[in-house]
Amino acid sequence: MHRRRPTAATVDPRAVDRTERPPVDANGDPTTAWRNDVLAPFVARTGLRRPSFATDSGLPLDDIDTPADIAGLDVARDLGLPGAYPFTRGIYPSMYRGRLWTMRQYAGFASAAESNARYRYLLDHGQTGLSVAFDLPTQIGYDPDHAMAAGEVGKVGVSISSLADMEVLFDAIPLDRVSTSMTINATASVLLALYVAVGKQQGVPMAALKGTVQNDVLKEYIARGTYIYPPAPSLRLITDMFRFCADGMPGWNPISISGYHIREAGATAPQEIAFTLANAIAYVDAAHRTGLDVDRFMPQLSFFFVAQNNLLEEVAKFRAARRLWARIARDRFGAKDPRSMMLRFHTQTAGVALTAQQPTNNVVRVAIQALAAVLGGTQSLHTNSMDEALGLPTEEAVKVALRTQQILASESGVADVVDPLAGSYLVERLTDELEAEAAALIASIDGFGGALAAIESGWTAAQIADSAYRLQREVEVGERDIVGVNRYVDDVETSPPVLRVDEAVGRQRAADLAALRARRDGAAAANTLDALRAAAASEANLMPPIIACVEAYATLGEICDVLRAAFGEYRPAMVL
Amino acid sequence: MHRRRPTAATVDPRAVDRTERPPVDANGDPTTAWRNDVLAPFVARTGLRRPSFATDSGLPLDDIDTPADIAGLDVARDLGLPGAYPFTRGIYPSMYRGRLWTMRQYAGFASAAESNARYRYLLDHGQTGLSVAFDLPTQIGYDPDHAMAAGEVGKVGVSISSLADMEVLFDAIPLDRVSTSMTINATASVLLALYVAVGKQQGVPMAALKGTVQNDVLKEYIARGTYIYPPAPSLRLITDMFRFCADGMPGWNPISISGYHIREAGATAPQEIAFTLANAIAYVDAAHRTGLDVDRFMPQLSFFFVAQNNLLEEVAKFRAARRLWARIARDRFGAKDPRSMMLRFHTQTAGVALTAQQPTNNVVRVAIQALAAVLGGTQSLHTNSMDEALGLPTEEAVKVALRTQQILASESGVADVVDPLAGSYLVERLTDELEAEAAALIASIDGFGGALAAIESGWTAAQIADSAYRLQREVEVGERDIVGVNRYVDDVETSPPVLRVDEAVGRQRAADLAALRARRDGAAAANTLDALRAAAASEANLMPPIIACVEAYATLGEICDVLRAAFGEYRPAMVL
Repeated sequence: MHRRRPTAATVDPRAVDRTERPPVDANGDPTTAWRNDVLAPFVARTGLRRPSFATDSGLPLDDIDTPADIAGLDVARDLGLPGAYPFTRGIYPSMYRGRLWTMRQYAGFASAAESNARYRYLLDHGQTGLSVAFDLPTQIGYDPDHAMAAGEVGKVGVSISSLADMEVLFDAIPLDRVSTSMTINATASVLLALYVAVGKQQGVPMAALKGTVQNDVLKEYIARGTYIYPPAPSLRLITDMFRFCADGMPGWNPISISGYHIREAGATAPQEIAFTLANAIAYVDAAHRTGLDVDRFMPQLSFFFVAQNNLLEEVAKFRAARRLWARIARDRFGAKDPRSMMLRFHTQTAGVALTAQQPTNNVVRVAIQALAAVLGGTQSLHTNSMDEALGLPTEEAVKVALRTQQILASESGVADVVDPLAGSYLVERLTDELEAEAAALIASIDGFGGALAAIESGWTAAQIADSAYRLQREVEVGERDIVGVNRYVDDVETSPPVLRVDEAVGRQRAADLAALRARRDGAAAANTLDALRAAAASEANLMPPIIACVEAYATLGEICDVLRAAFGEYRPAMVL
Repeated sequence: MHRRRPTAATVDPRAVDRTERPPVDANGDPTTAWRNDVLAPFVARTGLRRPSFATDSGLPLDDIDTPADIAGLDVARDLGLPGAYPFTRGIYPSMYRGRLWTMRQYAGFASAAESNARYRYLLDHGQTGLSVAFDLPTQIGYDPDHAMAAGEVGKVGVSISSLADMEVLFDAIPLDRVSTSMTINATASVLLALYVAVGKQQGVPMAALKGTVQNDVLKEYIARGTYIYPPAPSLRLITDMFRFCADGMPGWNPISISGYHIREAGATAPQEIAFTLANAIAYVDAAHRTGLDVDRFMPQLSFFFVAQNNLLEEVAKFRAARRLWARIARDRFGAKDPRSMMLRFHTQTAGVALTAQQPTNNVVRVAIQALAAVLGGTQSLHTNSMDEALGLPTEEAVKVALRTQQILASESGVADVVDPLAGSYLVERLTDELEAEAAALIASIDGFGGALAAIESGWTAAQIADSAYRLQREVEVGERDIVGVNRYVDDVETSPPVLRVDEAVGRQRAADLAALRARRDGAAAANTLDALRAAAASEANLMPPIIACVEAYATLGEICDVLRAAFGEYRPAMVL
């Protein structure tokens, strides 16, 4: 890189005498006179597109933002510097100048073999981390031959029920060289056990494994629905994993506390921050109650947010969440380790923002959303494929999505600077307001006695439903335009090729499973399941017995059946 | 829109006592200690992607930008407020909250009838202004049956040679309701005359016509090449149009002073600003010398810039150009009318940034570039089609390009705020530096005696060639990554459908022209051409006789032949 200063003597355009300045009011504010003498007559003549403007979350957008709008911002206190408390400007000192975010495309469908081929395709095209999507039966703890799995095997993700599947899923993918995120919650401990086991087969010790399990059951009760057990045993499984990872898996995030699904369900940006951090508070409290020191496990907490369309609000959201979490970690939990205060997060672009109409338009939306994530300092990113509103993404669509990240990284210049929007009057004001609104919502949740109590009371879901209703109404009455849906609609829609999973996958998976059961040492598997049953009745950490189960080729369904019997199943209360 | 404040009492996260602040040096600067104690050890451990970072134009990008980096910024003096001097924050007080930018897709190919169909397609899909591309013969003043036109008729734009063609081009497009930009330079006076004549046929008086002719011949000598006459008569034609429009066409921009082609030729962002504004200075000087008061014509000057990939540098570029032009208009030319100080500009995304490889990736690039233009406050925008590196854009590709603008306008939220990056430490620093570099380059050009002298000396072209060479070298040595070109290359490239112009168009156009010559009143046409010849030899304004020519169906080639005979033709000096 080089510097291209012109050789001629530099002339300072400010050297010229310039006395003309905007007139100010008694407080020295120039906007009063400007509003009266410049803006108002202009608007009277030309009109405005709307009577008032707001972000997607309803934060007001004023005529103009000036230094007066962030007069309360104390740069040293509220922004600090990157890699230092309160981490508003990013959790690492050099951010993407050092290492780019991890490009991690969420993928998985049909069988382990088909998903393995997709992962290798993505790695070949420059992806830098894996992200595994599981099918619904795997997520709720049923083997593919179970009645509850009918019609769902391999549909929304890969079907995994035993170590035999996991061996195929990661065939020729060296686990010491990739990091893997697994979107798995109620059955996260089983999948983590499977990952540890397959790593061991590859000769990679568990201390060297890098990755994340989502493992955020509270948001399943709120918004996503793939829970199995009631809250108390669910939190036990989670805290067992916190402790297990704190002890032996320093490169593993035992949880990814997720606002993504909350926002996708219709929440606003402040609700996304607040409900996510409130859930995080509940996990920290639960682990703390078991006697774990916060600085032993908080550095391993990770988070997961959406990147929606409203670019500047989204950038502010990521910054606000980072600052608020740092303050909570330090002031509420008394964390001492700066790593406990760092909000590390994965981002996915917004699935709900994609349209089935005119699917190429989604490339534009995803680019804007991905930019928001990068300007907001994400640690890893999934960019949705343009055809995801229509079916499973094709290889070609997945490649464009990955290229979107690569273009942002290589060509847009935004990866060469750190927190580049810092100081923007608008972005700093939005950051302040989002933090304040989220903090107020967390205070409300504290008033219920915490996230779990708020969820069980139905308050959390009602808050989201209220926001979702307003969003939907704005689209319906035309206050919110969606290109190709309620504006610029095409008479004739063309349909690109989409990928669908063959129904035969379910039958093949059931047959594979029968063959596995026939060839494994059934007594050994049964013994490990008995040991798990005993452990579940005690206060022992459940991770070691679950690892023993999967290494004996006990299946996911068998393991979950043991735990279902021990813990019971969650049934949501109807809340009106 | 609505406000969704939580109902619970707001808690201020800052109410908590927080004493931890970054340590500062003797000047109160916290970055010294941060660099030594936070950044340096981190970088020592993790490394950096490059030894140093810079924008695409070579402006250095530091480890971090903080308030100290813009300590010299005087917000009242240097930013002001939108719609007021120095217009850094935008030329209108309400910007896109009032009216969106004009979505103006540059289009035109083959015959007038085919181009008319494309314009109607674009207007049907929500485009809000027209932009006409002309073929090379039309741009350099040859009819389609001339030997110089062979093989070029209808290739890069529409072929127009007479009022008969213009009638077809704007058939069923009411000229009182659209604004039209015409990318035409050496023959701009003829095309403006044709537009006036076709407006008159539609019953639209010329005072009601809205639009722009590019008419920027200086940049043709620098970078684009479609000049005809030597500089002096070219400047006369231009100043004649300034006066003609000042007198009778208040809604018409008689020039669009263009940095686009200069930048596309390889210039940096400061060169783009400087060479464009230096050319503008030359036009203002030329018009002023004819006795026109600057405030009579400067409000009708318009500008044209590129939006390149480097998002934040580009936003800063637009802001810097606006401020610098305001200062030049006021302090150099003594303009009194604020409209003389407003830099109104059209933006086109960067053609050179598009890749023939993996063309869907261009949708991403165009989205980023278009975003830069909108964040930078453009008045109108052309977004390139993803297939333009391969051929003429297809309807489908043109639609996606237009949808890109509509998504930015409707879904990204950036049109609901005014100059949203104002205050950003980085963007304000880049704005300052770009303005200072451009001002220094203009000072160098002043040293030559102005833009024309600098161009004729070869200095301007050499500056651009130097920048272009460095850019090219950066790509070749891999310092600059281009996705799909020198990174993430595909082994097999798929080719989307592209549009190509049939060779038969040239023959048909020649036949049409022969028929026109046979049916028009030949003597009447010859008389108007004689009158033009006489006017060219006098000091009369040439616009009225050119209008008389086109209304008598004299052709573009015939009119230009008269002027070529009167003025001579420009031949560039070889500069080594």
